[in-house]
Amino acid sequence: MPTREITRLTLYGDSISGNCQKPKWTADFLGIPFDWVEVDILKGGTQTEDFLAVNPVGQVPVARWPDGRTLAQSNAIMLYLAEEAGSDLIPEDSFRRAQMMSWLFWEQYSHETAIAVRRFHKHYLKKSEDEIDPNLMAKGRRALGVMEMQLTFTDWIVGERMTLADIALVAYTRLAHEGGFDLSEFPSVERWVSRTEAALGIPHAREAA
Amino acid sequence: MPTREITRLTLYGDSISGNCQKPKWTADFLGIPFDWVEVDILKGGTQTEDFLAVNPVGQVPVARWPDGRTLAQSNAIMLYLAEEAGSDLIPEDSFRRAQMMSWLFWEQYSHETAIAVRRFHKHYLKKSEDEIDPNLMAKGRRALGVMEMQLTFTDWIVGERMTLADIALVAYTRLAHEGGFDLSEFPSVERWVSRTEAALGIPHAREAA
Repeated sequence: MPTREITRLTLYGDSISGNCQKPKWTADFLGIPFDWVEVDILKGGTQTEDFLAVNPVGQVPVARWPDGRTLAQSNAIMLYLAEEAGSDLIPEDSFRRAQMMSWLFWEQYSHETAIAVRRFHKHYLKKSEDEIDPNLMAKGRRALGVMEMQLTFTDWIVGERMTLADIALVAYTRLAHEGGFDLSEFPSVERWVSRTEAALGIPHAREAA
Repeated sequence: MPTREITRLTLYGDSISGNCQKPKWTADFLGIPFDWVEVDILKGGTQTEDFLAVNPVGQVPVARWPDGRTLAQSNAIMLYLAEEAGSDLIPEDSFRRAQMMSWLFWEQYSHETAIAVRRFHKHYLKKSEDEIDPNLMAKGRRALGVMEMQLTFTDWIVGERMTLADIALVAYTRLAHEGGFDLSEFPSVERWVSRTEAALGIPHAREAA
């Protein structure tokens, strides 16, 4: 990652990371122009001197503006972009908004930590089933079950329209098969994945894979 | 946990859980009256039929209002209470608010998952040092280092005044010694813990322990 002068919003991320896709999809959806700087996590790209100057915590994604401000954490970046754009990806009703926040925190705590982590171990670190912590499958299936329970009743995670909660949760749910999860057990989730991919204009992950 | 009619905001939580203390402290700080229903996680209190009727996901804390609305996730509950109260625990400036959100997500992803988890294994499950995943100490020390880096420059996590990020982060940082962490290595963090406890009117954890 060469040091560069930036003239508009710049998103630093690794394309294989669902967390990094979230702010990218959000910016695309909102029509916000940005530059993308690829940072290869597996090759140590988040630990170089140049990258640590952008985010001393050494994590992607990070957003950076021409005036030097930077912001880390996928869900925080999405929230800021959508809020600045006045987008209805954030519900206007305060309790709906609170429910969306609840799902965003749940995603990072109870979903990503099982589904993204298992995918990383299986698909990128090429670990065998025996080498992967067995709790990850159980925890991931519980998370998918929670989503199925919601999506049986509503088309979107928080009620009648797409919000940031759908973008956050689709990032790794659409790639769950790479972590050994079988989405056909969760038919409402499977339909919602296609619905959300279509709304965001991104390819269906299984076909793209 | 007996089924009960509720007439005002009710917070369900386990008093030993930092996550459960967060909405409680926030409500106290904002002067919002509430009832507290104790749910013992270690005794399976989050998996009873009565509790699952309140939160089918089986996690505390949960907030419940007399009209039947419920909200899960500690940070989402704090945000909603502070927003409804118009409190300056949420910064008015949109970018400061975004920074606060970034810290709230970081807390759940990179801090709680090491510091709270190690405390739980050591202090409640009474595991010996050898039985505890060695990564937890390294990860927790990194998290405390990130906080130290910030708190060397500012009195509060997001600039000049206390926000929800301080409440979220103090919950387990003040109990880090129960997880085997030595806060004296992080002097700015140690001073900030006392500052935040004083601002919230809660006892100093080490003296209380």
